[in-house]
Formats: sequence, C-alpha cells, structure tokens
Amino acid sequence: MSNTGYDFGMVGLGVMGRNLLLNIADSGYSVIGLDKDTEKVASLTEEADKDHVKATTSAEEFISSLKSPRKIMMLVPAGAPVDSVIAELTPFLSKGDLLMDGGNSYFPDTNRRYDALTEKGIHYMGVGISGGEEGARRGPSIMPGGSAASYDFIKPILEAAAAKVNGEPCVTFIGHRSAGNYVKMVHNGIEYALMQLISEAYHLLKSGAGLSDEELKNVFTEWNKGELNSFLIEITSEIFAKKDEDGETLILNKILDRARSKGTGKWTSQNAMDLQVPAPTIDLAVVARDISAIKEEREAAGEIFPAKEYKLDASKEEVIGKVENALKFAFITAYAQGFAMIKKASDEYNYEVKIAEVAKIWRGGCIIRAAMLEDFRKAFEADASLKNIMVNDDLAKKLNAYQSDIRDCVKMGVDASIPMSATMASLSYFDLYRSGWLPLNLIQAQRDFFGAHTYERIGEEGVFHTIWK
Amino acid sequence: MSNTGYDFGMVGLGVMGRNLLLNIADSGYSVIGLDKDTEKVASLTEEADKDHVKATTSAEEFISSLKSPRKIMMLVPAGAPVDSVIAELTPFLSKGDLLMDGGNSYFPDTNRRYDALTEKGIHYMGVGISGGEEGARRGPSIMPGGSAASYDFIKPILEAAAAKVNGEPCVTFIGHRSAGNYVKMVHNGIEYALMQLISEAYHLLKSGAGLSDEELKNVFTEWNKGELNSFLIEITSEIFAKKDEDGETLILNKILDRARSKGTGKWTSQNAMDLQVPAPTIDLAVVARDISAIKEEREAAGEIFPAKEYKLDASKEEVIGKVENALKFAFITAYAQGFAMIKKASDEYNYEVKIAEVAKIWRGGCIIRAAMLEDFRKAFEADASLKNIMVNDDLAKKLNAYQSDIRDCVKMGVDASIPMSATMASLSYFDLYRSGWLPLNLIQAQRDFFGAHTYERIGEEGVFHTIWK
Repeated sequence: MSNTGYDFGMVGLGVMGRNLLLNIADSGYSVIGLDKDTEKVASLTEEADKDHVKATTSAEEFISSLKSPRKIMMLVPAGAPVDSVIAELTPFLSKGDLLMDGGNSYFPDTNRRYDALTEKGIHYMGVGISGGEEGARRGPSIMPGGSAASYDFIKPILEAAAAKVNGEPCVTFIGHRSAGNYVKMVHNGIEYALMQLISEAYHLLKSGAGLSDEELKNVFTEWNKGELNSFLIEITSEIFAKKDEDGETLILNKILDRARSKGTGKWTSQNAMDLQVPAPTIDLAVVARDISAIKEEREAAGEIFPAKEYKLDASKEEVIGKVENALKFAFITAYAQGFAMIKKASDEYNYEVKIAEVAKIWRGGCIIRAAMLEDFRKAFEADASLKNIMVNDDLAKKLNAYQSDIRDCVKMGVDASIPMSATMASLSYFDLYRSGWLPLNLIQAQRDFFGAHTYERIGEEGVFHTIWK
Repeated sequence: MSNTGYDFGMVGLGVMGRNLLLNIADSGYSVIGLDKDTEKVASLTEEADKDHVKATTSAEEFISSLKSPRKIMMLVPAGAPVDSVIAELTPFLSKGDLLMDGGNSYFPDTNRRYDALTEKGIHYMGVGISGGEEGARRGPSIMPGGSAASYDFIKPILEAAAAKVNGEPCVTFIGHRSAGNYVKMVHNGIEYALMQLISEAYHLLKSGAGLSDEELKNVFTEWNKGELNSFLIEITSEIFAKKDEDGETLILNKILDRARSKGTGKWTSQNAMDLQVPAPTIDLAVVARDISAIKEEREAAGEIFPAKEYKLDASKEEVIGKVENALKFAFITAYAQGFAMIKKASDEYNYEVKIAEVAKIWRGGCIIRAAMLEDFRKAFEADASLKNIMVNDDLAKKLNAYQSDIRDCVKMGVDASIPMSATMASLSYFDLYRSGWLPLNLIQAQRDFFGAHTYERIGEEGVFHTIWK
C-alpha cells in the first residue's frame, strides 16, 4: 500500500462485505476491512494479498489507515446496525469523506441519514448492490444514489468492481438521496415476482402435466437458451440437477415448502400502494410466501378441501410450450410494474432517475438479470417518457403473441386446483390495464350512495352527488 | 337540558358528526356540537329540539357546557385535524374526562394519542363507526377501543345510538388502545373487497353474458333475497334502478369509471403484509381502484391490446347462477382474510379482541353487514380459537359446494378478457390455503443458491446450506 493510506474501507466483513472488498482489491486498490468479529478479520487477511488487503477490529485504526478524503462502505444488516455504525464512525470522519451504505436499507431511513450527514459535510450514499455472494466477489450490479458529486468521487472504484456487459460496467448514478436504495428495493420486488412465477410454472408442470425431475431440468435448461434466458432460470435448471448426498434424491425434494423473506418484497408492495402504481404480481408473490409459512394450517385445510380429480387433455410438449410463453408474458408484466414504480417514484421523490440506465445496469450482475432487460433498455432509450413498457411496440407484439397461452395456463391451474397466484395477478394487471372501460363506475355510485363521496361524470366537468334513496 | 350540563359533546358537525349527534339526542340525551363553521352550527340548531340540542363555535362554551366528567367525541378528518382538535381541547379538559375519536384514524396514530392523553389522566378512545350518513343518523355499527373502564363510562350512550339486531346493539368493547380503529380499518378493507367483487360480477354479467340494466337490477334484487343478502347487494340493486333526470339513462351509465379511495383499504393491505396474514382479495381491490384512475393509459392500451372475440357458450340463467355462487364463495374468502388479520393483530398488538363479538356487531348498521355475518359469529362462538373461518364445518361445506362455479367464472373472465382480479385473488387465496404442498421449496433453494440464506428440510431439525455450484 501507499504511504498515504488505503484506498477503500469496508465496515462489516460478512460474506457480502468480504467478497466485495476482495473484488475491489482485485482491481489493484488497497483495501481495509473493519469488523468486531476477530475470526472474520483473521480469515480475510489470511487468504488475501497482504500488500493490498488489511483487516482490523479497531475503528480508530481503520479510520486512520484510510486515504483522505476517505471512501468507506458499510455492509451490515439494515436497520439499527447501520445507525450504530454511523454513530460510531461519524466522530472520526472529516468533511469531504464519503460514507456508503451497501445494504438493503429501507429508503426513508437513507433519506434521514443522508440529510443528517450532509449537514455535517460528509458525503452519504445509499448503494444498492445485487448479485448475491458470487456477484459481490465477481461483479455485481451496483445502484448508487446520493449526489452526483459523491458518485464522481467513487465512480472509478465502483466501475472496477461492477459486472460488465459488452465491456460496460453495470453501475450508474441512479439519482438523488435514497434513489439507490429505492431502485434496489424495486429490483428485489421484481425478484420476488419472478421467483414466484417460476415456482408456479414448476407446480403446473410437475403436478398438472406430470413432468419428472429430469424433464423439469431439461425444460429449464432449454428455456434458458431462449427469450427466458436469465440468472433465475439458469439457477433453477441447476437446482433440478443437484442431488443430495445419497446421489439419488434431488435436494429440492427434501426442502420444506415454507419460504422466508427479508422484507424488501413487502416494502415494494406497500410502496406501490402508497404511490398508487399497482404491483399485483409482486403483491401475490408476497402473499404466497406468507401463506407458505403456515404449513400446518395448509395441511389441515388440504384435508377439508381435497383437490378435484384433474386430467390433462394436452400433451406434455404442448403444456411446456404454453407455460414457457406464459412465463415470458408474466415476466414482462413483473418488470413493467417495477419500472412504472420507479418512474412514479422518481417524480414523487425528485430522484431524477434515468430509467434506460436502470434497465442497462440490470442486464448483468444482479439477480434479475435477463436477456429481456436489453429489450426494456431499448424501449426506454427510444422513449424516455414511456409510461409502461407493455405498450412499447416490440413488447406489445410479444404480449399479444403470448396472451392466449397465459390464459390457457391460468385456466389449467384453475381446473387442477393449482394456485397460479402471481401468474393470475399478471394477467389481471394486463387485463385491467388494457380495459378502456372498467366497472368501477359502480364503486363510485356505491361510495356516493352510502358516504356522499360524490362522483365524476363521463364528459362533464365537476363532481356530482345523487340522493339515491 | 339539566342545569348540570349537556350529556355529550361532538366536535365536527360535518354530515357524520351532525347525524350521530342527532341520533344520540333522539334517545333523550342532551347534546352540544362544536364547529368553527357558523353555517353548520346554525343549521344543526335550526332543525333540532332546542331543549336537547345546542351548537356553538366557541370551544370554551362547548367545554363549560358539558357535564363532568365530560364525554366528547371528535368527528373530523383523520390525520392532522385530529391532532389539532386534541391540542385545542386538552388544556380545558379535566382528569376523568373522556375524549373519543370517531373518524377513520390510522391505528398507530391512535396509540400515540392514547398514550399521551392517558398520561394526563384523560380517557381516550378510538371509535370506529360504520354506516355512512344514514347509519350515523339511524344507527351505525360502533367499534370502540381504548380501555374497558372508559367504555363502561360511555356504553349507555353508544348502545342507544347503535343499530340493533334482534334487539341487541351493534356495539361492544373491541379491545385495548387502538383496537377500535384497527377493526374499523379491516372492516373497510373487507368493504373494498366486496365492492370490487360485486363490480366484477357486474362486468361479467354485462360484458360477458350481455345482461341489460333491467336484467342486472332484477338479478341483484333476487340475490339480495338469498344468501348474499347484504347492504352492498341491496344498494347495488337500487343503483341499477336509478335513472338520471332524463328519465331514460341510468345514472350509473353516466358515471366515470375512475374510483377514488381514502386510504383505509390501502392501510389494510399494507398491514396484512406487516402481519404476514395475507389479504389478496383486498390487495387486488386496491390495485383495481388504482388502475381505474389512469383512464387515459387504459384507453391507449385498449387500442393496442383489443379484447379477443368472445362467445358465451352458456345460457344467461346458467351464468347468473354461477356468478351468484362465485360471489358467495369470494365474499366468504374476503371476510376470512379480514378476520384472520384481526386475530393476528389481537395477539400481536395485545388488543384482546373477542372475535365472535366483532362478527356480531357487524351484523347490523355497517356497510359490510350481511346475512352471512351470522354464520361467522356462530363459527367463532363455537370455536374462539378458529384460525380461519373457511375451515368451519358449515362454511367449508359452502365453499366446497361453490368452488366449481367460481372456477368457471374465473375461466369465463379469462376467455372474455374481463379482469376478474379480486375474484381470482379469492380463488388464489383458497387454493394456496388448501395446498398442503406448495412449490416454495424451489424459492428456498433459489434463495440459498444466490444468497446463502439457508433452508429447512422436511422432517429434519435445523437449517441447511448447500454449495449449489
């Protein structure tokens, strides 16, 4: 390292912090890590090039070892731990230092911290990072928010660490204040939706069409070569190939069907409702995880409500083709919901997000990376004011081509008592969005009837009230 | 009035406050109203019996005219107005006085206010009131929360004002602190769901089966005589009979299909996600209202995605029968979601709600009153620990009887490009809940694959992690 200090500091040497630090060190930057856990400190330095990588349990040593102005990232659990690291470090920081939060912080928390530290002259950034362990080590997608000036200061390091697509780094300045955490939250909401949609495809193919594990593996492997090409489809095909120690059973078949979550999907749904930019596919993905958790209630209800006898009246091949198209359709609607949220949030919270750039940096490194991100990038590049990607010419053509297949898959699920919850919500979203007329005139009439809430009339100005009785 | 002062005071003489005050006066109580609006003050006293009813614009006169300990209710818009009334009145209140909030306050606000006023020795209650204008005047359903001691103090007045079912008043002590506002919030969430479900039935019958306005009126009138008997079905039949001034067109057909909302449905969905007690039918009702608001986007999308030609292959009568059963099924699931939330919230927030009592007081006066509430009351009376009303013997029988019809209605909507969003969500809820096995083992595998989040195994203790690659 140079005499003037380390280039970059990381607080929190859990798997994400440690891997990202080693990733940054790979590009020739000297880095130092801070963690209270002596084992984590020891293990980082053991396997790393001692010249470039150091770790310590002492905050003072950490701070004094960094080049000024300092560049520090926290990768600690969201919530109180972030506040306590900030409280611990702030007294030692100088004006012009940069402090970044690389975790999944709730975006209003980031606004609060941003304001407090900006007042002290410290640059603060909420940086969304996606890619899991492997992404952190080899190149994640990075979503930094804060101020453009802070970003310029850290840009070379983040660009070096980020995943590359066609040589372009998967990082860009997302927008002001909490924009980075916000966009990462929506990323995770979309991730919830895609995972649930894939699970429903699996359910329909397994329980409805009777595919074996081997057939499922082949289906997902094939799908990954086409339009569905994506990280999540890829790892799903690998999961269908992974046998337990006995060499016989898939690990998958030994896993309890009770999904947990860390809250970012829920936040996305809740915020969609606040913004009044609906995200029903994400909502139903959250619903499915929550219902999965009450396994005992489900088992008891299963006795009371046995599934009706179901006989598939199509070939396996036919069903596989339909499910593939249904997934393509539903994937597009899930991204559409997320992008619509980001657009509205950008206006509402003054983020000034360049949405084509978001699509661009999601093409690589992150969990929701997929071939179709390039279509979305193109759509927004062609028209930055596009309200919903579904109405882009190319995407509309696809939706029109696939819609009869998603309708068939939903009906198949309905007949087979297989809950295609998020798939149905995707179709609902599409059918609501494409309905020039909806029956909500009746709801306005009802509200006016019992609550005198008034209503609007077609083609007339003003609000009206009727004495209905 | 007696020399010692008025029995009851109302702050806020809007339509709800004024009507409830007159309702209380009808039972012989002397009442006084406070409002800054001189017109509202004048109009209340004009039409009322001067001996029992008074109104003023002066907070001091209002306070000094009330019997001690005072009984005061606020009926002002939720949010800041409630806090400012509290701030204005508190200096004049004495220990032992009772201050009630009769509006749709967000329940965490009520907790905050309850704690602040309790510390000052003032009894504070959040009182949910449902029934609209008419209910307030003739007898609403009342959901008071706070402390049992405060309730005993106001009980005679609330019982006198409440709707009666078989002579029993539709009011009971709901539970501690914000329990009253919480239960009213869930009431409104269910209301959103039922209204959306009715709208979807209307959509399918009108656009799918081609029913005329006259036929729709007759259908809803008939339905209201059977198991669906309820306030919302009743007013819907009346809405289908209400002609505009021209005497020709239904007012309904002149109303813009853009529904507004005041937030309680959204709060219910958001809280359902916090509690992890899913309410997908309510979620999709909120979604449908939000999408209805972007009429221009919908119209543009309608051009791009025209509905496919649809030909009904059943008689109108057949469809009407199926839709009726689908609505019965979906109504039960909507109430099931709401009751499940109240049960969990009661545990989580220490409300100590007696859930059979909630079903009982919802039988009359409120917007979601319906014949089936008596079934729910019986179900909880038979088993207070019942986790979900769907598994009660009698209700399970009904769900089993109607499930093929809701499946047919969903498929009809899917084929006709009619978004049966909340209806579908009801079926999703049922099918998720009755699935002893769900494909969420795959989600646990994916989460462990990319994020090392670990997973549980069937029949084994502990958590597991796999190196998947």
